Amino acid sequence: MKGTVTDSKRLGIIGGGQLARMSLAPATALDVKLTVLCRDFGEATALVWPDVMLGSPDSRAAIAAVAGRCSVTTFDHELIDTNITGDLEGRGHRFAPSTAVLSVAQSKVLQHRRFHELGLPLPPFAIVAPGEDLAAVEQFGAMHGFPLMVKADRGGYDGRGVWKADDLMAATTLCRHLSERSTAAVIEALMPLEREVAQMVARNWSGEMAVWPLVETVQIDGMLRELRAPAMVSSTLHRQAADIAREIASQLDVVGVLAVEFFVAEQGLLVNEIATRPHNSGHHTIEGSVTSQFEQHIRAVLDLPLGETTLTAPHVATVNIVGQSHGRPPSLNLKRALQISGAHVHLYGKQTRPGRKLGHVTVTGDNRDSVLTAARHAVALLEGEDDV
Amino acid sequence: MKGTVTDSKRLGIIGGGQLARMSLAPATALDVKLTVLCRDFGEATALVWPDVMLGSPDSRAAIAAVAGRCSVTTFDHELIDTNITGDLEGRGHRFAPSTAVLSVAQSKVLQHRRFHELGLPLPPFAIVAPGEDLAAVEQFGAMHGFPLMVKADRGGYDGRGVWKADDLMAATTLCRHLSERSTAAVIEALMPLEREVAQMVARNWSGEMAVWPLVETVQIDGMLRELRAPAMVSSTLHRQAADIAREIASQLDVVGVLAVEFFVAEQGLLVNEIATRPHNSGHHTIEGSVTSQFEQHIRAVLDLPLGETTLTAPHVATVNIVGQSHGRPPSLNLKRALQISGAHVHLYGKQTRPGRKLGHVTVTGDNRDSVLTAARHAVALLEGEDDV
Repeated sequence: MKGTVTDSKRLGIIGGGQLARMSLAPATALDVKLTVLCRDFGEATALVWPDVMLGSPDSRAAIAAVAGRCSVTTFDHELIDTNITGDLEGRGHRFAPSTAVLSVAQSKVLQHRRFHELGLPLPPFAIVAPGEDLAAVEQFGAMHGFPLMVKADRGGYDGRGVWKADDLMAATTLCRHLSERSTAAVIEALMPLEREVAQMVARNWSGEMAVWPLVETVQIDGMLRELRAPAMVSSTLHRQAADIAREIASQLDVVGVLAVEFFVAEQGLLVNEIATRPHNSGHHTIEGSVTSQFEQHIRAVLDLPLGETTLTAPHVATVNIVGQSHGRPPSLNLKRALQISGAHVHLYGKQTRPGRKLGHVTVTGDNRDSVLTAARHAVALLEGEDDV
Repeated sequence: MKGTVTDSKRLGIIGGGQLARMSLAPATALDVKLTVLCRDFGEATALVWPDVMLGSPDSRAAIAAVAGRCSVTTFDHELIDTNITGDLEGRGHRFAPSTAVLSVAQSKVLQHRRFHELGLPLPPFAIVAPGEDLAAVEQFGAMHGFPLMVKADRGGYDGRGVWKADDLMAATTLCRHLSERSTAAVIEALMPLEREVAQMVARNWSGEMAVWPLVETVQIDGMLRELRAPAMVSSTLHRQAADIAREIASQLDVVGVLAVEFFVAEQGLLVNEIATRPHNSGHHTIEGSVTSQFEQHIRAVLDLPLGETTLTAPHVATVNIVGQSHGRPPSLNLKRALQISGAHVHLYGKQTRPGRKLGHVTVTGDNRDSVLTAARHAVALLEGEDDV
């Protein structure tokens, strides 16, 4: 127990993307006062929320202004300068997740080190510090073969900052490139994958935790494109994933929602990476779980009791809507998509750009394949070039 | 088909109470542009929505300003001056429901006349016009006995404008009182009730209709206090209620959501009254139905296809949170209430006043009694005097 939130619960969110936007409905239902830091009034959240402070999530003054107004402050994304949050924590402001957690979430190197210390299952990896002799890459390649994965320590998301290196030349070139930018690299053996799964867990200040059922994810170009809940894996893997997620949440002292992405390899689960906030792997929980990840995150960071996490139907599928090269917004195809029975459409109000996540569709039901088919169908219509 | 909504779908809502407030989540998810007319920035919806115009829902200029900005305009409540909407319709503005529908929804006299013409089942009734000889009341009382119900033609909601008259003296006094205010009265035989049920239906501009499963309601002091879905009545009554609701929606040419409240009497269903908007009888649909009444209303008034209306669980219960005499806001007890597993808490952000609806709690599950017990428990905690 770290202390209690004052009666005047005002929550701050740094960043006004779709995660903050999807937090508005549960904040409204629970009558939680909420201030969101947005870059401009056109951002996804600013379009639909009145209590907005304008500023950059990179600005010390802007973060300080939000934190000064709120009893606790959380984040739309974790790419936040931890010097700023650390300094503000020192002055008594509360962040959830904390600066210590953000530091790990931002760094592939710290994640690997910490998870290795905790004895969690990871793919074979090596850390290449900036300026280090690249002979380590050669040794790693000789031991684990090619291709291998090269991951930038910092700044990666949605597949950015992660490369597959087909041979030693490619791997050393990438590591040198990162080294010249004073960035460490994690090199990782490429595992023969069966599939990828993700485990969501929430933890409040009091240490209460709640896990959702494990989900299967399909990544395309490093971006989550589809998910199905529950994952069709053994009960042992379900239990292991939940145990690992709880272990990470409690060992790192995470407050809020935590997503742990896993590879399912021959030898079992391997931790891939984490996100310490509501995550694309949990969007299905809005309709597909008794408590959505967005409501649960708010409850956790305000130290309220956590909600039930069971699924609302035997099967849930969520498919992302991604911007296409034709550049037409998905809202123009809404009429068509809503003809798909049971399609829950979520649009993020963002400008269309090719490859950009613009929304998602969730379908719940009794049949594992038909919910995915329906969600894909609605997304195909929304991404289509023709309007009605 | 009355025409199509333009691509730039901006929806207007006249009035910023809890019904508009609960429409924000689906408007956001569907990326529907929304302008809400609020009295002030402290109103339930203005607290949580940026695109607000300030003004009275009684003001012609304010309604005209919203309608002028929006492709279609709807209402948080139906107590709107139909001279204003009628005039604006004549100038090409679109309202859903229309002025013709609002006129019926506002008038108990017009409802009784119209439903009688349509051959719908009603309790025995008589209409007493202002200035009319009150001998009619005596005749009606002689035929149907006392007590009887006296209902003001206009202005009633949540039990206001409805009185039980125990004898002829009381009935004539009430009718004279209304007559002096130039208001007609409907006098109605008091039926021996088994229970009350409500049927929600939605209808879009194209005439597509969707009914939700019938619900049972418990009224206290004329205000809906609890509801349970589905109603435990015969399949014949379920079918009759759905048929009557569809008949009213299509005969009146309703666009949007319509609630039809029924008495279940010995002889079967009797229509009590209607509301042509999302209604307290449909709050359970937020979690308890595939498509909530708030999303469905938006889809209907924008002429989008209607969504699936099946329940998400075998049983759903919703209990209203009502302001108590101690005057403490329910938000102070949130921590306690959220300990009730599966309790979906909705607070409306309104100032506490004794008897005022401040929110509701919905619980879904497999057991008809335990969902109601859990919802009642959470509401009792929220209404309690003590905080944690």
